[in-house]
Amino acid sequence: MIEVYAYATPNSIKVPIALEELGLDYTLHSVNVKQGEQQQTQFLALNPNAKVPVLVHTDTASSEPLVLSESAAILVYLAERQGQLLPATGEARARVFEQLFFHASAVSPSFGNAGFFTKLASEPQPLAQQRFSGEAERVTRLLDELLAERSFIAGDDYSIADIAHFGWFWRRAFAGVELEAYPNLSRWYAAVEQRPAVQRAITRINALVASA
Amino acid sequence: MIEVYAYATPNSIKVPIALEELGLDYTLHSVNVKQGEQQQTQFLALNPNAKVPVLVHTDTASSEPLVLSESAAILVYLAERQGQLLPATGEARARVFEQLFFHASAVSPSFGNAGFFTKLASEPQPLAQQRFSGEAERVTRLLDELLAERSFIAGDDYSIADIAHFGWFWRRAFAGVELEAYPNLSRWYAAVEQRPAVQRAITRINALVASA
Repeated sequence: MIEVYAYATPNSIKVPIALEELGLDYTLHSVNVKQGEQQQTQFLALNPNAKVPVLVHTDTASSEPLVLSESAAILVYLAERQGQLLPATGEARARVFEQLFFHASAVSPSFGNAGFFTKLASEPQPLAQQRFSGEAERVTRLLDELLAERSFIAGDDYSIADIAHFGWFWRRAFAGVELEAYPNLSRWYAAVEQRPAVQRAITRINALVASA
Repeated sequence: MIEVYAYATPNSIKVPIALEELGLDYTLHSVNVKQGEQQQTQFLALNPNAKVPVLVHTDTASSEPLVLSESAAILVYLAERQGQLLPATGEARARVFEQLFFHASAVSPSFGNAGFFTKLASEPQPLAQQRFSGEAERVTRLLDELLAERSFIAGDDYSIADIAHFGWFWRRAFAGVELEAYPNLSRWYAAVEQRPAVQRAITRINALVASA
């Protein structure tokens, strides 16, 4: 049994997309981060870092369920378990990890902080806003240049690296990033967004908000 | 042949530590980031993201050398190639990836930005400084709590997750983080620091600065 604790966030969406792509059944549990539910004792027992998503995998082969945090670690776990969406060896595999870590260390913090300092900060912090908005544009441009040479983020094949990057580009409005100036990234985003598995995941994760 | 483009930075140090632990020969090339060498055309051809470290692996089995960026992706590549420092399956493996991505998405950006807004920003940005210094302390406390229950970051065995976290704790002064209040993390740091492979890597990477 697979359970996912999530909300309609850039990191949460990655997990249902991967599960839909892999054809695995799962139960989605809503953690309303706008109401601070990720800080409640019940959720902190799953993830002391107070972040969604969390995967709980109850495997009949193990006595204890696996409780796993970090969206990209969940993507790697699911892809390796199913032997899909992550090449087994060589440069193709290394490129997926390169992009997963580029996402985690560059795309995600710059998009998140650009949005925070533009929209949520209690006082203007112009230098911080410029720093992160500029970095969000810089990493977006790098991805656009990379997609001039590749069909997908890590090479010729769709992989968990595409799923990781899709999360923040799906929520790019928060970061103030627009795709219009980036033709290769626009083409890639449209190709990923129209995948039936991606559509199913978006429908299910948006339903968490609608029912909140 | 393995070549590493690096400097004495939190992310760079991870790669020579892994290579020393794995007993692999390598050549270190200095990229003096204090003088902006990571922005030079020659380096951008290796990594358009303008970040150290970069691994260049010329394998006799391949026609083209593999040029790989993102320190944690390099750690995964080397560990999988050698079959060491990363458990092959199961929860033990998942925990290593969980910590690699916690490092990339939480520890590294909070430490880097705490240092930037405290020491390098051209104007005071008090809200930004509080945000990132507070986050650096929060993630440090989480790791200390985790190390109350584990010998190493991802479980009972030393892994590339320890090497990843060591990089920023080695440079914790930049972030204004001190270990004194964190007994479990202090014990872990001392255990990692005194490993002969770690000492050899620190000596070699510091020599890049001495010769700059």
